[in-house]
Amino acid sequence: MSEETRILSVDLGDRSYPIYIGVDLLERSDIYKNHIASKQVLVVSNVTVAPLYLDKVLSGLSGFQVETVILPDGEEYKSINTLDDIFTTLLEKRFDRGCTLVALGGGVVGDMTGFAAACYQRGVDFVQIPTTLLAQVDSSVGGKTGVNHALGKNMIGAFHQPQCVIIDTATLQTLEDRQLSAGIAEVIKYGLINDPEFFEWLEDNMDHLMEKDPLTLSYAIERSCFDKAEVVAADERESGMRALLNLGHTFGHAIETGMGYGQWLHGEAVGAGMCMAASYSKKLGWMDQLEVKRVITLIKRAGLPICPPEDISVKQFLDLMAVDKKVKDGQLRLVLMKGIGKSLVTSEFDSKALEELLYEYH
Amino acid sequence: MSEETRILSVDLGDRSYPIYIGVDLLERSDIYKNHIASKQVLVVSNVTVAPLYLDKVLSGLSGFQVETVILPDGEEYKSINTLDDIFTTLLEKRFDRGCTLVALGGGVVGDMTGFAAACYQRGVDFVQIPTTLLAQVDSSVGGKTGVNHALGKNMIGAFHQPQCVIIDTATLQTLEDRQLSAGIAEVIKYGLINDPEFFEWLEDNMDHLMEKDPLTLSYAIERSCFDKAEVVAADERESGMRALLNLGHTFGHAIETGMGYGQWLHGEAVGAGMCMAASYSKKLGWMDQLEVKRVITLIKRAGLPICPPEDISVKQFLDLMAVDKKVKDGQLRLVLMKGIGKSLVTSEFDSKALEELLYEYH
Repeated sequence: MSEETRILSVDLGDRSYPIYIGVDLLERSDIYKNHIASKQVLVVSNVTVAPLYLDKVLSGLSGFQVETVILPDGEEYKSINTLDDIFTTLLEKRFDRGCTLVALGGGVVGDMTGFAAACYQRGVDFVQIPTTLLAQVDSSVGGKTGVNHALGKNMIGAFHQPQCVIIDTATLQTLEDRQLSAGIAEVIKYGLINDPEFFEWLEDNMDHLMEKDPLTLSYAIERSCFDKAEVVAADERESGMRALLNLGHTFGHAIETGMGYGQWLHGEAVGAGMCMAASYSKKLGWMDQLEVKRVITLIKRAGLPICPPEDISVKQFLDLMAVDKKVKDGQLRLVLMKGIGKSLVTSEFDSKALEELLYEYH
Repeated sequence: MSEETRILSVDLGDRSYPIYIGVDLLERSDIYKNHIASKQVLVVSNVTVAPLYLDKVLSGLSGFQVETVILPDGEEYKSINTLDDIFTTLLEKRFDRGCTLVALGGGVVGDMTGFAAACYQRGVDFVQIPTTLLAQVDSSVGGKTGVNHALGKNMIGAFHQPQCVIIDTATLQTLEDRQLSAGIAEVIKYGLINDPEFFEWLEDNMDHLMEKDPLTLSYAIERSCFDKAEVVAADERESGMRALLNLGHTFGHAIETGMGYGQWLHGEAVGAGMCMAASYSKKLGWMDQLEVKRVITLIKRAGLPICPPEDISVKQFLDLMAVDKKVKDGQLRLVLMKGIGKSLVTSEFDSKALEELLYEYH
């Protein structure tokens, strides 16, 4: 594994784009020049990330007409109201439909900026610079953008592909441990979905990953993006197999919504959610005890919770799952496992057993 | 011209859809069944239209699980806030991503409902039932959806094509004269853009149109939709020739925004805007006096204003034009005419002459 910049291509026909992965990419003006067609650039960041990295990005963007919007930090601000602040700046600064938005920050900044770009004047360009591991391995690929609604997470949004994604792994050195773990949850997910070899690699390298070893991080990011890109390329609009990427998410979203946004990190909820999916798969006789144990052990080693919070009652949990996007024509669909690296989407499961599973956590 | 239902196809590859034009179509359950794939249907209408036509639509939709949202009436409600009411209902009623939204009303209801459909769970189906002439000849074709922002009209939105459009010309019998005129503004526009034969037909048939003669209305709607569909099919995302459809709109939007939403109807502003575009084209030596006179005469016969309001100063007018979407990289682009049926998009015009033109109206 070398230290040079790696370029991964996400293949989506005329919406294809590259992901750059490497160190010290934020100031690389050549990358910006190659992917920003406009003069007008709005950089959107938040109060946590901007003090650390905004100057580097602005220096890379010299020559463009740059404005910035600094948002408050936190999932609770991922709302239509915050979105309106971005629109107001764009309109006050007279940004036209040829402009480009740059998202500098984690998943919340990326999702909101991408959605603002999708909607502003019915669609403008955007570039993503994810600065958390979660955003790097999740939001980088797939074009999902959006905001939360008081009644449900990510319920309002659009599919909008970026012009490019710039992943500077050096940004992870300032990332809090809890945020790192949350990102690793999604990394583990890719192994569980359809890459058992990667899952084994993670079992061998989890300690290096937790220590933020740069080369280990780089490899994990690249392989995660590659795995995700493969699924997305086959199903851009999420009509079929892309739903696999929601492994752990139906349980996870119920936890996030039930606890109130911001209490549990998304990755923490997904970590517990994957443990629940594995345990439920075992209950249905689809996965053996040894494999379930490997899943739970790896998730635990990543510093993630392995159970849902007791504060959410079984009834509340079932209600929250029913409003999830994975419901179709009133039918709840879940991503479950026939083994490590063998996930599947199904609505054919014993809902009585689901209730039992939830009671076991209480 | 017969009284049977006409079907016009808008050809956009896998996003193609039919427009049904005829009388008494609102209750035609066969049309709904052919184009609604879900059980869950949300009908969005407003306080003016719902009392007149909602029952008919609900009777046509028997067999579906139908909910309704009735919005206040008026352009001032075409906002992100009103949009949120639609999302709240969808989430409270647990509508999933397989659901369908039905827009029953004029352009405001259609634009908002279409945008809500574009964003809800990142995109669900929608069916349009436009009940004003303006919406029938404008919003029916093109997939433009969106809301206004305090700082600019239609600044937030998406391209989202409907499953089908149902135009029941009987709904026009209850339309106010002022609204009818506003719709005719867009009808005249299609003639001016690239259909001189249709312009002549309008000169011959304007009186019948103003009297709401059903066959005359049907023909005008069908030909308008056909003309617009031709332009849109060639340029779905508005990168090139689709901009022609904005004839009269850069001037018009400045009037609407300057006067405050709801003071002038959109079509009234476009009517005055087309007169301004014609006069300006003459000033540039592109159009002769006789043709300009034909344009102004026809617009006047349609009961539309032929001058901008004096309340907006020249400076304010120029400022308002500069924020319009037709600006690209700081360059104002206008749709002007080389003659009736010979419109073109250009940024090569004498801006001094533009200022002079505006002073002439004061």
